[in-house]
Amino acid sequence: MDDATERRGRRGGGGAVRRAERTAVRTEFSRFITRNIPNLEILNDEAMEIIEANADTVLEEIGVNFVENPEALRLWKEAGADVTGERVRIPKGLARELCKTAPRTFTQHARNAERNVEIGGRNLVLAPVYGPPFVRDQAGGRRYATIADFRNFVKLGQMSKWVHHSGGTVCEPTDVAVNKRHLDMLHAHMTLSDKPYMGSVTDPSRAADSVEMSKILFGDDFVDQNTVMTSLININSPLTFDGIMMGALEVYARANQACIVSPFIVGGAMAPVSVAGTLTQVLAEVMAGVAYSQLIRKGAPVIFGAFVTSIDMNSGAPTFGTPEAAQITLGAGQLARRMGLPYRSAGSFCGSKLPDAQAAYETANTLNIGLLAGVNFMLHACGWLEGGLVSSYEKYVMDADQLGILHQMARGIDMSENGQAMDALREVGPGGHYLGSAHTQANFKDAFWRTGIFDYKPFETWFEEGARDTATLAAVKVERMLGEYQAPALDPGRAEALADYVAQKKAAVADAFM
Amino acid sequence: MDDATERRGRRGGGGAVRRAERTAVRTEFSRFITRNIPNLEILNDEAMEIIEANADTVLEEIGVNFVENPEALRLWKEAGADVTGERVRIPKGLARELCKTAPRTFTQHARNAERNVEIGGRNLVLAPVYGPPFVRDQAGGRRYATIADFRNFVKLGQMSKWVHHSGGTVCEPTDVAVNKRHLDMLHAHMTLSDKPYMGSVTDPSRAADSVEMSKILFGDDFVDQNTVMTSLININSPLTFDGIMMGALEVYARANQACIVSPFIVGGAMAPVSVAGTLTQVLAEVMAGVAYSQLIRKGAPVIFGAFVTSIDMNSGAPTFGTPEAAQITLGAGQLARRMGLPYRSAGSFCGSKLPDAQAAYETANTLNIGLLAGVNFMLHACGWLEGGLVSSYEKYVMDADQLGILHQMARGIDMSENGQAMDALREVGPGGHYLGSAHTQANFKDAFWRTGIFDYKPFETWFEEGARDTATLAAVKVERMLGEYQAPALDPGRAEALADYVAQKKAAVADAFM
Repeated sequence: MDDATERRGRRGGGGAVRRAERTAVRTEFSRFITRNIPNLEILNDEAMEIIEANADTVLEEIGVNFVENPEALRLWKEAGADVTGERVRIPKGLARELCKTAPRTFTQHARNAERNVEIGGRNLVLAPVYGPPFVRDQAGGRRYATIADFRNFVKLGQMSKWVHHSGGTVCEPTDVAVNKRHLDMLHAHMTLSDKPYMGSVTDPSRAADSVEMSKILFGDDFVDQNTVMTSLININSPLTFDGIMMGALEVYARANQACIVSPFIVGGAMAPVSVAGTLTQVLAEVMAGVAYSQLIRKGAPVIFGAFVTSIDMNSGAPTFGTPEAAQITLGAGQLARRMGLPYRSAGSFCGSKLPDAQAAYETANTLNIGLLAGVNFMLHACGWLEGGLVSSYEKYVMDADQLGILHQMARGIDMSENGQAMDALREVGPGGHYLGSAHTQANFKDAFWRTGIFDYKPFETWFEEGARDTATLAAVKVERMLGEYQAPALDPGRAEALADYVAQKKAAVADAFM
Repeated sequence: MDDATERRGRRGGGGAVRRAERTAVRTEFSRFITRNIPNLEILNDEAMEIIEANADTVLEEIGVNFVENPEALRLWKEAGADVTGERVRIPKGLARELCKTAPRTFTQHARNAERNVEIGGRNLVLAPVYGPPFVRDQAGGRRYATIADFRNFVKLGQMSKWVHHSGGTVCEPTDVAVNKRHLDMLHAHMTLSDKPYMGSVTDPSRAADSVEMSKILFGDDFVDQNTVMTSLININSPLTFDGIMMGALEVYARANQACIVSPFIVGGAMAPVSVAGTLTQVLAEVMAGVAYSQLIRKGAPVIFGAFVTSIDMNSGAPTFGTPEAAQITLGAGQLARRMGLPYRSAGSFCGSKLPDAQAAYETANTLNIGLLAGVNFMLHACGWLEGGLVSSYEKYVMDADQLGILHQMARGIDMSENGQAMDALREVGPGGHYLGSAHTQANFKDAFWRTGIFDYKPFETWFEEGARDTATLAAVKVERMLGEYQAPALDPGRAEALADYVAQKKAAVADAFM
């Protein structure tokens, strides 16, 4: 019985919901992570103070550009900034002061209240890959993504125990018109998943559609009073805020919906070729963006974002899982915590074209650091391939399996009497073994994290079964998950209203493909 | 000009050494890591005190077995332990007190003094895989290892920039008699590499051979006065010290050579199925072993070891890269530091049969934690495959590439004026890019860690070049490295003396294969 769904009832009755829920298969899911282990702090206080002072200097002396956005310039001027053309120079301390009205933590509601997530504090919410125009699977290779792929990835998210969030553009459905695909994407998240989701940001009107559709799903009042979307607002680094992205932010902030304000940085190209320099720029950009969100609406929920990778100075290609990216991820987390803002960074980043060893090293390097950096919202936590050009079916489930490790790591060490296991030590003694001990029997089921993909069979068995590599095992799992998928119950009245909204909106304008 | 080699001159003159060195190709190598970042501490003081008290209780109430070793029993009795049969019960506090004479840090000398390593403190020394009876490469698949493979792995170690140590049994040369292979292994390390190495531990007589051969290589006096070997002494967990391993430890400790005293634990089988319980056992075992080394010779260099993996409770197979292993690695590091002992743990652990994504996830999870756990000596840092049954050529070079990341991570964040890069930020400004900036030009060469294997080429180029996965790219690198390998210069007199020693020892007894 889902109280939250009941409470939200506007279209359709609770009875239908209850009946539908009873017949649905309940998929395994895990609550978001709450860390019981410390963060790794690699900047000392002096270093943080230097970076903060430098970021203030950047904002005051260099400033940021708000492009094609006269209203933003007006608001900044009113707030006390020095505005010349599109350049906004922000006096020292002002941006930080404006940021103070942003909440330290907020709840993003899902249509199934059990899937609500708490963003901020010691929590970590995991969301899938975002943005790739291509997909890859073992059978079909690399190809342009379609809405069918999109729906598959939403289904995988719904079926993945350790993935807390349905995400946003899990791949670009390139077979749907650019000006209409956000409708199909939102519809897929709302109907195929009952986890929280992200709104469209590619145009302010699409952000408005996201809010409208959310009102159909949750009810008008509920959306007015609660945050039901977290959307990704990228900054055009260095130091530039474009009118379209800011337009989407304005829609969301006014509607009290959450935005990630996120520099998008390939270090060496869009930021200085040094960690401290990049951190300075990240902080300056986030402070300007978050401050702007608070100029739009004080208290609007917002996340300190940092998408950072470095560049291969030979080829110009972005690289992933590098130590410089790790240091920036750790350092930016410290800066975010000092601002009292939720923090978004890390993900299943990799540059490899295949879900192979390169992909896995790069991804594991990043996921581990993401946990230790105190990340609160990890977009791209599974499924990313080839520098973000590709959503990989196999890598999605491989990464999603690894996310279980983050959950178990974050729990910390059980120091209870049972955890201390002195009885087991006494029972077994020198030269014995623990497999049959009472303590082992009582605890083995939950004691250790267990993979759902990796192969630990004896060599001979593995060989007889085809000597399959991880990607091949993952392909089997993808097929099984999509085969077993069942849609979460949705009130038929709301489902119909959502479908109507999408149909009407699509019929109202011609297709655009640019 | 190598002062250390000169100084050690006993057989052969310095002139020959100098001439040989001038003609040798100098391979790239990196100094061992000295951390400039904090360790990750997941146990609080109270938790550590509980574990320490529990370990004391284990030693006093349960005790440990010293098997087939009457001399050890005599020494323990003399030291104040309660000895009944082979069981040694150690009064609370005694083991810890005895451990205090072990050095906090020591230098292990290499025949090339530039390759000396400092073990302990904030340092991290990386050594390759140890022990597998099989090798695998892409061309030949999985097969029993031979002495030819062994030599190849020593050559790869010599050629690998980020590998500081030549290691020990980089694979088991199964084509050489069990009672003679240590001679060929040591000879390979001593002649094909100029990095530090490990001694034989499979029999006290083989440990003695290791000391004798080291005296030929370094000179008698030098070995008497310096540590030139670090050898691996496993404890038969739970709580059992066998006579052969302890016999080897005795030889080394008396000769002032270093030993790693290392529980070998598959959690759930050889230790309780809980992290705190396993840490308690690890600490009790290490305290007993290290204390014993100090009974043999006060001040003998010794390392707090922890080889820990967990068990798949379904199949009974050991698993790798798990969160439980990570927690134990982190916790044991804290316990080692409280004892003031150098710490050995982590490595390129994986259960996968192939150098694929599973292998890489598992390995990266472990390497990252190893760095953050304050490990001082990381055995198995590259090349481990299939739960330690296989030394993988391709994975060796893949892992060795990743070790560069640990070096760069450990450097911490450069907060110099150049690192802060305010000039670059001022020069570029909003909407610009940094590729051509003066700061980028001055810094790009050393700014970012760079892989020697991974592919970051555009998709089309990669596809035209054969769409190679990481293992295939690694196979190419292995071939190139072995092709380019050149032996480091060795004084001809010593080379001859070493060959003579091996030949005489081999001729003296019949082959044994058990």
